[in-house]
Amino acid sequence: MKYALYYWPIVQGRGEFIRLALEDAGAAYTDVARGPNGMAKLERFMGNFVRATFAPPYLKAGKLIIGQTPNILLYLGPRLGLTPKNDADRLWVHQLVLTLSDWTVEAHDVHHPLGAGLYYEQQRAAAKRRAAEFNTQRIPKFLRYFEHLLARNPAGPNWLCGRRASTADLCLFQVIAGLRYAFPRTMVKREKKAPRVVALHDRVATRRGIAAYLASPRRIAFNEHGIFRHYPALDQ
Amino acid sequence: MKYALYYWPIVQGRGEFIRLALEDAGAAYTDVARGPNGMAKLERFMGNFVRATFAPPYLKAGKLIIGQTPNILLYLGPRLGLTPKNDADRLWVHQLVLTLSDWTVEAHDVHHPLGAGLYYEQQRAAAKRRAAEFNTQRIPKFLRYFEHLLARNPAGPNWLCGRRASTADLCLFQVIAGLRYAFPRTMVKREKKAPRVVALHDRVATRRGIAAYLASPRRIAFNEHGIFRHYPALDQ
Repeated sequence: MKYALYYWPIVQGRGEFIRLALEDAGAAYTDVARGPNGMAKLERFMGNFVRATFAPPYLKAGKLIIGQTPNILLYLGPRLGLTPKNDADRLWVHQLVLTLSDWTVEAHDVHHPLGAGLYYEQQRAAAKRRAAEFNTQRIPKFLRYFEHLLARNPAGPNWLCGRRASTADLCLFQVIAGLRYAFPRTMVKREKKAPRVVALHDRVATRRGIAAYLASPRRIAFNEHGIFRHYPALDQ
Repeated sequence: MKYALYYWPIVQGRGEFIRLALEDAGAAYTDVARGPNGMAKLERFMGNFVRATFAPPYLKAGKLIIGQTPNILLYLGPRLGLTPKNDADRLWVHQLVLTLSDWTVEAHDVHHPLGAGLYYEQQRAAAKRRAAEFNTQRIPKFLRYFEHLLARNPAGPNWLCGRRASTADLCLFQVIAGLRYAFPRTMVKREKKAPRVVALHDRVATRRGIAAYLASPRRIAFNEHGIFRHYPALDQ
């Protein structure tokens, strides 16, 4: 199966969780909006389509068109060898992907607390207030949670579920990488209490498919159009 | 199978999407935190549990403990007759549940734009600015999207997927009910352009299990501790 990913071409964004899964598995895929007529093709399956997607990313797999990042990972996981075999573990991995998706939304909303329709520059003061809570309460709470899960995994602390990497591990890698870019001062301090999470991040980065991807031009650099944005005023 | 739902006892909140599915199907379940020692039992599967849940709701089904609202509905759907039989339709329904979950988060963040750690009263001005965008941009955009899907459903406009109700329809009912409570003036105006969505809401309300539930004391009234809160200043 050759997959087609439809997502904004200049940011990692939510599409990155899909790119990482495809790259980790060495799957054949095209990143459609980064190719010729990319934006026109991206808009095709929104708009007037019978099963229109509310927002990118979406994945075309044969005749199927699948939207919502966690849903795409739910579909891809077993096909890419990134999902456990039994149903209970699959639900567990999906639960973790959804929790990491919640964390990602919160990281975005730090710089857009008043809504995505205004620029960051129009909501600096509100962003600074929201950042204070995110950095001192939410980042530590999420880090504690995932550190706890790794410490209590009966199969050992290498991966979130069992003894093999799953889509949840790739998502945790991406969230940590993004937070380090956006909030470097905060993360230096907060990471100290989450050594297993940091080790998982590093472990994912050295997986063959991921390491090759991160070193390639296919990995878009973090920037101030994406989810994880570095504004020093928000990293206090 | 007798299910046990763990969720905050005084609000509809995210737990309500689960309650509606169980009630629609006439499933046997206990709403644990509303019974004796409820809060202590609720906290039991957070905290130090091996597969701890980040936040309520979660569902106990035999030995399984499942967290994250869309994940719980993914599990319950086929067991309650609220999910289509084929895989493509199941992914589609899950995609819609996730989009409705995103809409729900946005509805919550209108009254808590600076974070859940502050009271609404501490962020009134920011809330008012966020409400302006939500009411004039986001509610119409989501309504247009679901209206479009109903209009284009090849099986007719009664339900979001095929010719039978699914968990996605119950979620859309709940979001519309919540928005009507929170933003009555806005909804009177915006609903006019979404007659199929309104008809779906009314159709769900008359389903046997749902109608009985809504008339029972088990349905907690909307209030200002939940996701959908009525603050007149935010309904302009």
